Amino acid sequence: MPNLSNRGNDAPSSPIRKLASFAEQAKTAGKQIFHLNIGQPDIPSPKEALEAIKQDESDVVEYGPTQGKPSLRRIYANYYRKFEAYLETEDVFVTTGASEAILFAMAACCNPGDEIIIPEPFYANYTGFANFCSAKIVPIPSYLEDGFNLPEIGHFKNKITDQTKAILLCNPGNPTGKVYSREDLIAILDLVMEHDLFLIVDEVYKEFCYDKKFISVLEFEQAKEHVIVVDSVSKIYSLCGARIGFLSTRNKAIQSAVLKFAQMRLCPPHHGQQLAEVSFQYRYPYIDEVKGEYRLRRDTLYAELQKIENISIYLPEGAFYIIAGLPVDDAETFCQWLLSDFSYKNKTVMFSPAAGFYHDESLGKNQIRIAFVLNPAAIREAMECLREGLKVYNKALVSTSQGA
Amino acid sequence: MPNLSNRGNDAPSSPIRKLASFAEQAKTAGKQIFHLNIGQPDIPSPKEALEAIKQDESDVVEYGPTQGKPSLRRIYANYYRKFEAYLETEDVFVTTGASEAILFAMAACCNPGDEIIIPEPFYANYTGFANFCSAKIVPIPSYLEDGFNLPEIGHFKNKITDQTKAILLCNPGNPTGKVYSREDLIAILDLVMEHDLFLIVDEVYKEFCYDKKFISVLEFEQAKEHVIVVDSVSKIYSLCGARIGFLSTRNKAIQSAVLKFAQMRLCPPHHGQQLAEVSFQYRYPYIDEVKGEYRLRRDTLYAELQKIENISIYLPEGAFYIIAGLPVDDAETFCQWLLSDFSYKNKTVMFSPAAGFYHDESLGKNQIRIAFVLNPAAIREAMECLREGLKVYNKALVSTSQGA
Repeated sequence: MPNLSNRGNDAPSSPIRKLASFAEQAKTAGKQIFHLNIGQPDIPSPKEALEAIKQDESDVVEYGPTQGKPSLRRIYANYYRKFEAYLETEDVFVTTGASEAILFAMAACCNPGDEIIIPEPFYANYTGFANFCSAKIVPIPSYLEDGFNLPEIGHFKNKITDQTKAILLCNPGNPTGKVYSREDLIAILDLVMEHDLFLIVDEVYKEFCYDKKFISVLEFEQAKEHVIVVDSVSKIYSLCGARIGFLSTRNKAIQSAVLKFAQMRLCPPHHGQQLAEVSFQYRYPYIDEVKGEYRLRRDTLYAELQKIENISIYLPEGAFYIIAGLPVDDAETFCQWLLSDFSYKNKTVMFSPAAGFYHDESLGKNQIRIAFVLNPAAIREAMECLREGLKVYNKALVSTSQGA
Repeated sequence: MPNLSNRGNDAPSSPIRKLASFAEQAKTAGKQIFHLNIGQPDIPSPKEALEAIKQDESDVVEYGPTQGKPSLRRIYANYYRKFEAYLETEDVFVTTGASEAILFAMAACCNPGDEIIIPEPFYANYTGFANFCSAKIVPIPSYLEDGFNLPEIGHFKNKITDQTKAILLCNPGNPTGKVYSREDLIAILDLVMEHDLFLIVDEVYKEFCYDKKFISVLEFEQAKEHVIVVDSVSKIYSLCGARIGFLSTRNKAIQSAVLKFAQMRLCPPHHGQQLAEVSFQYRYPYIDEVKGEYRLRRDTLYAELQKIENISIYLPEGAFYIIAGLPVDDAETFCQWLLSDFSYKNKTVMFSPAAGFYHDESLGKNQIRIAFVLNPAAIREAMECLREGLKVYNKALVSTSQGA
């Protein structure tokens, strides 16, 4: 039998989808599961967008332009002015999800063996994309104890080698909820300009900033040759299945490479683009309502978590995730147990073990990522499951060890 | 300014989309263009599929399963029985177009620097995908004069090195229209088994075989560890914009790698999957009607081409393309001229210069790829434009050289 490639062998499994089979079994057994494991919002997509698809009278679903529909690119460029970023239509590519935008950005920057520095914990699929490009991720730890502040610039400097091609930030952070300040961004931009690196910023959660203003890295004109921003309609418009994202850059060489990458896969999905365009047209007051709802969910979750003993938390400033440190040795085993062995009032809760978001295997073992993508009542019930689950789990452990 | 990656610099431009700006200018100037340059069918998509989307009452466009919707995978596996291929649901991945299937297949087989042997001319984007994976394409020429028969097996053997990981075939061929015989496939399968290689076969055009039966490489159980088939709904159901394709393999290691690649991009597009599933449900008599229509178009085109002096053609057995050798030095210059300088009754025609489908830059200079994706009346008008265009172009050349 022929051998797989290294990238085929070494590709990481998704920590977010890892426990899926246990969830299936729990459902088959009749348990209700609160899905706080994946960033799948339950808020209805803009109804005008769903309606527009039904009104479409065309009888052939045709290829569209490689870069995406010009009208969608234009409305998106215009939308970014709200963040004091002045993009031209030609600076914007519509991609098949932020996923493709990240892949194209990494591929345009990195040769096989090149390095990308990322503060950890980080969105686990960054590792998958880097592996796919035969590039290497160099992590710098950030810590739950201080709400996952940006690591000191000196730590980034220490990691820069001849192979370093880019720094990647997620702002606001998935899974951390951290929102970087103007000072944070300026410090990183100074560094990438000094060392002639690219800066890739994942701004998918930019509309979810609860306590301070979001600053887009596209605002900083002086660094425009260095900056690539990736984005998505999945989270803000509850359009995860539409598979529409964006890659924006003012760097003409990157634009040229991305155009050629985009040509090979022909075009982004037709219906997704239609949904995205109409959603942007009807974004007010939709976006503000959505943000208000998520703020409520965050506050509900935070209040509920504070009731749990021996848990480590902080107040996330943005996105819709929080990392919580649990009083267990191994959060993955606990998360699996919640699905396979536990229920409370015939319900249980599903989380993503946070270890999968750390590159360093020794970090985050007792942590989980909680996505607050359900309504406050569901969050309260889910946290009741977590509280009861921890009691039963730790009691079982005690009795097991006493029995041994 | 930081440097692009080599793959960013070296990515090929699409020869199919290369002349797009000249076409835009021609349209702005008020000319009607017959688009025989791109495989964008004009036949209506199955109306039941378009209707199903309008009946969808869900109010959130959610992520779907990474491997694609189980019901779609099942109906697709079942559909392939028609070609005597017995796939299980788990052998089938829904991908974002055949594009993604090809990319995943190459990435699962090849490390940077590894080689894939492909008979040329071939679908130009294979070069793009190989470049994206930092893999290398090794072409073997096939020839218009014999209707692009499979090159002799000895020629493949001569190209096999320690870096060779796969052979790639397109059957039926884009851009050649060649349909490989059972003997062709067995000879190639013997070779890949002997040398422990993968065989990737692009079967996107399998429903378009006009003169002989299509043989799927998935029929051959003995080679199941070696074979990866890529496919798409774009051409057969006129669903190019849906971005739905398939990757099928019985090789468990490849399945495991593809699953991990698929996880990183989360899921294929929701509406495209819906369109595809309903299209497969209503595939009879739709597919036979479509095939009948394309046969008529092929015969019309072939008859019209035969009326043109000094042209080299053959009767394509499958797909919906023909490569024609024109009495011009450089077909790309001619194709551009047709758009920018020529019209006949205020109409003109657009082709893809065929040189872009050859890896060897010396081949195919005077050839074009004609996609017979328009109705017979349009094809006749388009061929009138070609005939008149050739007359004017060659006359202009004569008078220019006489004047010089």
